[in-house]
Amino acid sequence: MITPSKRSAVPPFTVMTVLQRVAELRATGREVISLCAGEPSQGAPSDVKRRLGELMIDRTPLGYSETFGIRPLREAIAGHYRRWYDLDIPVEQIAITTGSSGAFVLSFLAAFDPGDRVLLARPGYPAYRNILTSLGCQVVELGCGPAERFQPTRALLDQALAEGPVAGLMLASPANPTGTMVGHEQLAELVAWCAEHHVRLISDEIYHGIVDASLAERVGPGSCAWQHDRMSVVISSFSKFWGMTGWRLGWALVPDDLVGAVDALAGNYALCAPVPAQHAAIGAFTECSYTEAEAAVREFAAARSLVLDAVPDLGWSKVAPADGAFYIWADIADQLGPYTDSTAWCAALLDAEGVAVTPGADFDTVHGGTAIRLSLAAGPEAIGAALLRIHRFQQRLADPR
Amino acid sequence: MITPSKRSAVPPFTVMTVLQRVAELRATGREVISLCAGEPSQGAPSDVKRRLGELMIDRTPLGYSETFGIRPLREAIAGHYRRWYDLDIPVEQIAITTGSSGAFVLSFLAAFDPGDRVLLARPGYPAYRNILTSLGCQVVELGCGPAERFQPTRALLDQALAEGPVAGLMLASPANPTGTMVGHEQLAELVAWCAEHHVRLISDEIYHGIVDASLAERVGPGSCAWQHDRMSVVISSFSKFWGMTGWRLGWALVPDDLVGAVDALAGNYALCAPVPAQHAAIGAFTECSYTEAEAAVREFAAARSLVLDAVPDLGWSKVAPADGAFYIWADIADQLGPYTDSTAWCAALLDAEGVAVTPGADFDTVHGGTAIRLSLAAGPEAIGAALLRIHRFQQRLADPR
Repeated sequence: MITPSKRSAVPPFTVMTVLQRVAELRATGREVISLCAGEPSQGAPSDVKRRLGELMIDRTPLGYSETFGIRPLREAIAGHYRRWYDLDIPVEQIAITTGSSGAFVLSFLAAFDPGDRVLLARPGYPAYRNILTSLGCQVVELGCGPAERFQPTRALLDQALAEGPVAGLMLASPANPTGTMVGHEQLAELVAWCAEHHVRLISDEIYHGIVDASLAERVGPGSCAWQHDRMSVVISSFSKFWGMTGWRLGWALVPDDLVGAVDALAGNYALCAPVPAQHAAIGAFTECSYTEAEAAVREFAAARSLVLDAVPDLGWSKVAPADGAFYIWADIADQLGPYTDSTAWCAALLDAEGVAVTPGADFDTVHGGTAIRLSLAAGPEAIGAALLRIHRFQQRLADPR
Repeated sequence: MITPSKRSAVPPFTVMTVLQRVAELRATGREVISLCAGEPSQGAPSDVKRRLGELMIDRTPLGYSETFGIRPLREAIAGHYRRWYDLDIPVEQIAITTGSSGAFVLSFLAAFDPGDRVLLARPGYPAYRNILTSLGCQVVELGCGPAERFQPTRALLDQALAEGPVAGLMLASPANPTGTMVGHEQLAELVAWCAEHHVRLISDEIYHGIVDASLAERVGPGSCAWQHDRMSVVISSFSKFWGMTGWRLGWALVPDDLVGAVDALAGNYALCAPVPAQHAAIGAFTECSYTEAEAAVREFAAARSLVLDAVPDLGWSKVAPADGAFYIWADIADQLGPYTDSTAWCAALLDAEGVAVTPGADFDTVHGGTAIRLSLAAGPEAIGAALLRIHRFQQRLADPR
C-alpha cells in the first residue's frame, strides 16, 4: 500500500485550522471578528506599499536574488540592529528568509540531526515542536508555569541535561502565546548555559519592539541574543512589528560556523525569499515606518487594557502577564459550561457569535485543554466588539434559558 | 564542540553560487550577461503587476491566507487545468506553495520517511537530490543518457527495484537541464509502473507550456500525470511559463491520501504562501497573460535556434535535444583548453568575458564535469551577444597568443 510518511503525522497548527473555518464562514456572508491569528490590523507600512507599487510599474523583471537576499535589504537590517541594539552585524551573516517559518526550518536542519534532543518551553508556539518532530529531532518540553513566568530557567535546563545530552534550546521572548519576556540578565545566563554545555540556542525575536509601555523604558525592544555571544541563531520577521504577516518575509542572524550550512540548505530548499517583498521591505526602515509601527504598538496596548479590564467580569483565571507580543493567554476552565474543553468552546463561540479565538491545546499539550489564546492585533475596536459578544456567549452558557 | 548538523552537509546549488558571483561583479560596475539561472527576461505578466500595484493602494491589510492559499487563486488554477488538460481538479486538492521549492519540500516530507529509496534521473535538478538527502532519504540515481533521452525508462526502474524496495520516483518533463520530454504514452507507462509497485510519483511539471514549436502541436503543453491517475503529486509554478521566478509562488496537486499530511506540514512549515503574490497571480490566467507568456515562449525558441546554429562552430558535442524548457545542456570536453573541468572553464569565462553559464557537475555527478547548462530565458538578444563572447573566449583558449 502507498501511504503518507510516518513523519508527516504531525498535528495541523490549530490557528490555521481556525483561519480556514473563518474563511469558510466569511465566504457564506457571515461577519466574523477574527482574534485567532497574530495579524496586525494596520497592515504593511505605507513606505513598503509605495515601494512595491512603484516596482510594479517598472519594467525590470524580478529574477531570483542571491540566496541570502538582496544586499540593500541586508544592509537596512544591519542598520536596524545598530538602531535598536547598538550591534554591528556583518551582512554576510544576515539571511533573508521566507518568513520566520523559513528561518526555523533552515536553522533546525542546519543545527540539529535526527535524534538530537532540543528543549523548548511549554506553553509555546506549536510549530517549533511539529517541525522538529517531523525532522526526527526529539523535543523535550520544559514545563514552564506562572512561577517561571512561562520561560526556561537554569534549573529546568539543568534537569533536562541530567536526563540526557542536549543539542539545542529554542527560546522565544516575548513569547507566543503568553507574551512573557526574558530579561537582559536572564538571557545572559541562558546564553552562558548554552555556551558552557555546547547547546545551540535558537532565539525567536519576532515580537521584539512590541513591548508593554510600562516595561519599554527598562527593556527597550527586548534583549537580543547576539548582545551576549554570537553562537546562537537569532530569528526575526517583518510580520509582527511591521504588520506584514502575509508577506512571508523574515530573517536570521547566522553564526559564523553555520553560514555555509544555511547557505547550502537555503539554495536547495528555497532558492531565495520572495523578491518583490524584499525590495519593498527596504521601506520598513524609514522614520515614517518606525512611527507607523510604534503607533500600532500603542493600539495593541489599548486592546490589552480592554481585555485585562474585562477579565474579572469574564471570570477567566490565570491570565499570563503579557509583557510583550499581542496575545492574551487565559484559562477559561470556570467558563466552559457544557463544553469539555476550550476547543469545543471556541468552535461554539465562533458558530454562535462569529468571534474566532484559538483554543490552547496545541500551545500547551498538558494544561492547554482549558486555555485560549486571544490575539490583540486586530486592534481595540475589534477587541471591544468581540468582548461584548464573548460576554453574551458566556452568559448564555451560564444561564441557557 | 558545537557544530553544524551532519545532514546539512549538502552541496550548495551551483546556480545560486554563480548568481552570487554575478551580483558581486555587477556591484563593482561590471556588465554581465547572465545565462546561469532559468529566469525569463520578460518578467511577470502585465495583468499580474497591475493587480499587485492596485492592491498596494488598497487599505485592506494582507494577513495570512488559508494554508492551501486563497480560494480565488485555487479556482483560477483549476480553470487552467481545464484549459490545458481538460481536467477537473477539486480546489481542495490544490495547494498554493512558496514556489515549486516549497512544494518539493512538503511533498517529500509527506510521502517519504528516512531511509526510503527515491529514484530520479541523472542528469537532473540537483535540489531534488540535496533536499531528499538532507531529509534522510536514500537517493538512487538512474543513469539516463542520450539513449534514454535523459529520462527514466521501465527497464531502469525495474533494475532499481531489483536492487531494493522503492518508495518514490521523481520525474521532470520537460526536464532541467536537458529539456527532454516524456511523451503521453511513456508517462502512462511510468504512472502504471508506479501504481503496480506502490511507488509514489512526484511529477515536476513546472516547464509545461514551454515546448518547442516543432512539437507543440503533437504534445501540447506537456502531459500531466493526473491525466493518467491521481496518486502522484503534480508540482508546478508561476516561475517559468509566466516568468515570475523571484515571486516564489507555485502549487501542488495533492492526491487524496496526502491532503491531510500536506496540510498539517504546510501549516507548521510555512503557514501559507506569500499573500500579495497570491492575489496578484490571479492575473496570470487572463487571455492577455497567456498571450504574453506564449510570446515569451517564441523568444526562447528564437534563442534556442541561435545556440543550436552556433554549436558546430563552437565545437560543443552531445547537445541534448531540448524539446522543452529553456536550457541547452552541452558537453564542452573538446573546448576546455587549459581547464580541467567545466567549473573552472565557467569561472574563467565569467571573469574574462562577463558571461555567466552554469557548470554541469551538480546536475550530473558522474558525467557533468565537462558539461555546461546555458539558459535561453534571457532571450535572443542576450544570447546572441553571449555567443560572440563565448566564441572569442574559446578562440583565445585554442590560440592563447
